[in-house]
Amino acid sequence: MYVHVVQRRSDGVIVRGAKLHQSGAFAAHETVVIPGGALRKGEEDYGVAFAVPNSAKGITYILQFNPLSAEREQAEDIFHLGNPQFGQRETCLMVFDDVFIPNERVFMCGEVEFSGSLIQRFAKTHRMNCGGACKVGFADIIIGAAQLAAEYTGTEKAPHIREAITNMIRISEASHACAIAAAVKGKEEPPGSGVYMPDDLFGNVAKISTAHGFWQIMALAGDIVGGLVVTMPSFKELKNPATKGYMEKYLKAAVPAEKRMRVTKVLQNWTAGLHGPGTWHGAGSTQAQMISLHRAANLEEKKRIAKKIAGIED
Amino acid sequence: MYVHVVQRRSDGVIVRGAKLHQSGAFAAHETVVIPGGALRKGEEDYGVAFAVPNSAKGITYILQFNPLSAEREQAEDIFHLGNPQFGQRETCLMVFDDVFIPNERVFMCGEVEFSGSLIQRFAKTHRMNCGGACKVGFADIIIGAAQLAAEYTGTEKAPHIREAITNMIRISEASHACAIAAAVKGKEEPPGSGVYMPDDLFGNVAKISTAHGFWQIMALAGDIVGGLVVTMPSFKELKNPATKGYMEKYLKAAVPAEKRMRVTKVLQNWTAGLHGPGTWHGAGSTQAQMISLHRAANLEEKKRIAKKIAGIED
Amino acid sequence: MYVHVVQRRSDGVIVRGAKLHQSGAFAAHETVVIPGGALRKGEEDYGVAFAVPNSAKGITYILQFNPLSAEREQAEDIFHLGNPQFGQRETCLMVFDDVFIPNERVFMCGEVEFSGSLIQRFAKTHRMNCGGACKVGFADIIIGAAQLAAEYTGTEKAPHIREAITNMIRISEASHACAIAAAVKGKEEPPGSGVYMPDDLFGNVAKISTAHGFWQIMALAGDIVGGLVVTMPSFKELKNPATKGYMEKYLKAAVPAEKRMRVTKVLQNWTAGLHGPGTWHGAGSTQAQMISLHRAANLEEKKRIAKKIAGIED
Amino acid sequence: MYVHVVQRRSDGVIVRGAKLHQSGAFAAHETVVIPGGALRKGEEDYGVAFAVPNSAKGITYILQFNPLSAEREQAEDIFHLGNPQFGQRETCLMVFDDVFIPNERVFMCGEVEFSGSLIQRFAKTHRMNCGGACKVGFADIIIGAAQLAAEYTGTEKAPHIREAITNMIRISEASHACAIAAAVKGKEEPPGSGVYMPDDLFGNVAKISTAHGFWQIMALAGDIVGGLVVTMPSFKELKNPATKGYMEKYLKAAVPAEKRMRVTKVLQNWTAGLHGPGTWHGAGSTQAQMISLHRAANLEEKKRIAKKIAGIED
Repeated sequence: MYVHVVQRRSDGVIVRGAKLHQSGAFAAHETVVIPGGALRKGEEDYGVAFAVPNSAKGITYILQFNPLSAEREQAEDIFHLGNPQFGQRETCLMVFDDVFIPNERVFMCGEVEFSGSLIQRFAKTHRMNCGGACKVGFADIIIGAAQLAAEYTGTEKAPHIREAITNMIRISEASHACAIAAAVKGKEEPPGSGVYMPDDLFGNVAKISTAHGFWQIMALAGDIVGGLVVTMPSFKELKNPATKGYMEKYLKAAVPAEKRMRVTKVLQNWTAGLHGPGTWHGAGSTQAQMISLHRAANLEEKKRIAKKIAGIED
Repeated sequence: MYVHVVQRRSDGVIVRGAKLHQSGAFAAHETVVIPGGALRKGEEDYGVAFAVPNSAKGITYILQFNPLSAEREQAEDIFHLGNPQFGQRETCLMVFDDVFIPNERVFMCGEVEFSGSLIQRFAKTHRMNCGGACKVGFADIIIGAAQLAAEYTGTEKAPHIREAITNMIRISEASHACAIAAAVKGKEEPPGSGVYMPDDLFGNVAKISTAHGFWQIMALAGDIVGGLVVTMPSFKELKNPATKGYMEKYLKAAVPAEKRMRVTKVLQNWTAGLHGPGTWHGAGSTQAQMISLHRAANLEEKKRIAKKIAGIED
Repeated sequence: MYVHVVQRRSDGVIVRGAKLHQSGAFAAHETVVIPGGALRKGEEDYGVAFAVPNSAKGITYILQFNPLSAEREQAEDIFHLGNPQFGQRETCLMVFDDVFIPNERVFMCGEVEFSGSLIQRFAKTHRMNCGGACKVGFADIIIGAAQLAAEYTGTEKAPHIREAITNMIRISEASHACAIAAAVKGKEEPPGSGVYMPDDLFGNVAKISTAHGFWQIMALAGDIVGGLVVTMPSFKELKNPATKGYMEKYLKAAVPAEKRMRVTKVLQNWTAGLHGPGTWHGAGSTQAQMISLHRAANLEEKKRIAKKIAGIED
Repeated sequence: MYVHVVQRRSDGVIVRGAKLHQSGAFAAHETVVIPGGALRKGEEDYGVAFAVPNSAKGITYILQFNPLSAEREQAEDIFHLGNPQFGQRETCLMVFDDVFIPNERVFMCGEVEFSGSLIQRFAKTHRMNCGGACKVGFADIIIGAAQLAAEYTGTEKAPHIREAITNMIRISEASHACAIAAAVKGKEEPPGSGVYMPDDLFGNVAKISTAHGFWQIMALAGDIVGGLVVTMPSFKELKNPATKGYMEKYLKAAVPAEKRMRVTKVLQNWTAGLHGPGTWHGAGSTQAQMISLHRAANLEEKKRIAKKIAGIED
């Protein structure tokens, strides 16, 4: 099922298989394909990396569909959506049904001994970015929106609200710090190449911290915004003559109903939608990162220190 | 804005105001309205409790609308939805625009001194049920579906999957135990009345434990089911001639693609939808329950024990 | 190394081996010994259960020794200790060096097929008691002492202190509820025997919840009492002419220095001593309970419910 | 009770009061005293900062005393202690009973308008170091010792042990990353001074993350090492003719009993001693840091982003 070479020709290769969870591939000019895992001898057909232009012959994109897709299809105004200006992260199942890749676009073909390091390079960059940078930006939106929601309903000075805001900041900035540490402790790989890669240990910590932390941020923001984040009526009711007056009267707070609804809708997207498992599995499952982290940590050095302190000589 | 009496007549009262977050009210034969909080002298107009039939003159139900509503409107088959047979919990904003309530349907009108105990009786029942019973049933669905998802993809024996399943059981059954304890330690109130109410302390613990625990269960189930819970294509692609073959080939596991998709869809509903904040705020916000719990605990007795142990005599 | 039969005689058996972590055995009139785990055919010598009086010939008790033991040895007044009236839980390594057990004191000898159920009966009682009852009593002391410490320093109304107190109550009472549920859902085993055993599932949940929760209670109480819980000088300084005046002046709060010190000392015992790992490993390690819990849960029934909801027919 | 000026003379000042929790002051050549909090007009006498040599006339150090102190007093061999080569962190109550400080050693005297920034400078350095650096070194010892303990008992490959080790690494390195970020994002204060101070936001996150994380690390290490961490007999039993043989036989594992006991003793110090509340309150209470963190975060900027996304114009 994984993408692999089914025919080697003098001018290129024919590939077949599928890639799941491809964020934005259907909208990109080019897709760069690499193997999905480290490979062993005998798996040369799967050791293929290449670039392919959008909609090349034989490629089919099957898009994700979920409740947020349905809502988007029906929306009459993008401001009736939870992330109006940027939308949701659209992924697709990308199918390669005997696609021809010319030689000049093939980067790897059978060199399985390099597959592990190729993936590790991708992974360590992605984990730093995805865990410690991308999601911290998301968290800034959530924290800002939660603070606004609290101010709109006059609860922003309540001690448990302040504590919830502060805890979101703490969780998010700890991930941010991991990204900074991954970048600062990065190394030129290989030396002299001019290419710098993030530190593997801090990159993995960034991603795992975020995987756990984002659920906590969702819970804290969901606490602050209140039940309306689930039970809010449609924005259309603001224009419906039968309900407009009621909506304006009963959903207004320190601000008119529409402002309150807009910030609530943004928080619905972040706390009552796809972001929990999306963040968990983005950049690979957390369990894979736990394994990488165990490998990246220098346990022998820590044992040496502990032995020295305990006065244990081997 | 809260529901209150605007006119007292010889044959009944006229009420005005709105109730937010009314689960299922639009589909119920009758709605029983009680005050939303304990009241003080001078707030007699808000101290009103009554029953009103569905769609009485002056009542408007404004339904919630969110991504899952949109998905439901578009669905051609209920099995394309995440909770196909039971649907989502529909709430509404229920507006009372000068509704007449005849005297025989009015249970309380101005007796503010009883408003606190009326609400507390409702609250302690609801917190036991909602926190410790209702959500435990939800968790059973989630745990069963997560176990199925793991079996379908062959990961059910992996140690971290078994641990995740066991942790979900632990969290859910701890809430279950709180509901049992609330029921078992319940008391006849008032003595001789034949009416038994749950224990306040355990009821509040049930609800707060569940508020935290449900987020954890969502995270654990989301871990097990994998990224497909976010990125899955539409069920329609299983019938689309252009994609049907690819879907069947690339989404099958130990079971055909459709079975895997069905269990994934159920888990999408539970882990990537409205249930985090829904569970948190259902039965009242968790912060309110923390205050109730502090009041319900016998701190003086605990201080007495601590003093005895420390040898402190006052 | 485990206790086992080394010789079978007509009037009894000779046993050899050791039992670790024996709470209070050195002070008990009798010790009842059972196997430490489920046994298989071929391990009959280890399938031995018996009662033995204190200090029978061949028995040696080697007591635990830790910082709290040292403090107790030096104390001139029991109120200078952290748990003055009840002391710490003293365990010992109990060695059986060819101890003769007469037949009338032997309950099992070689019947390995019953070893699993014997242990399970012990375990389910112990886990209910140890996790859900014993530690809840400990927590009551801690909560009471923390509340006193807050009142003595005038912080008991600060929102984060109230929240910490409420969270300790929540955590402790959830374990309490598990013990109640384990007892209420207990069954006569075997039917007609008149012997009732606690429910296995809730008993395991009680113990695991407590294992995690006790660390949290320690952290919350340690937060409330403040740094003095670590840095407090000796009670002897209250009588030392060179320091007595300073102690009384600088350690008094809403109460004289000695009262404040006594409650701080109690909390030192509970938050800065042996109770974290003690609670974790008491009644067996938490990992063993996770395995028991996975087995006790009815996963098949949960899968059945999930399949019904998803419309999956096998 | 706080240190303050009681007399101003032409050649210096006389100070009176006490400082609690002074780590190592009794062993330092000099102590630098600064105010304990931001001060207001009218509190000039408390706005005093100075250096004082050890044991100056009028100074009394009253040392902390706790179970670990008692154990140290009795120990015949430092390797019978839990942190043999470095000992515990000794604090003292440092009393100033009318101590004369000559003018050349007085850095501040009455300038209350600078007291807040003086403390903040100390705090941000201390929080970065204490939370994100010092405790990470401690954690390295704990992780190394826990890994050794697992290897000595042959459990290091068990999945839940590997996971516990990995989680300790994750928690510790996240704090480490916060210290790196605090340092990297530090600024010259004031510009041109050549003095660089750590970033306040990341410094506070470092300390708060560690305050929570250290309890978790203690719990994870305590899980790995097992119940012996509480119940271990005295090292003296290894030399006691009556028990030596039993100790060697029943406490040996993959290594002789003494090695196993040494690593267990180190872990007793870290998981069953003073380090939970010690870490929590060191560098000031966590609640103070939560307040600093709320102040250090740029909430207005986050609100601006959220408004832009929601399409809210003020």
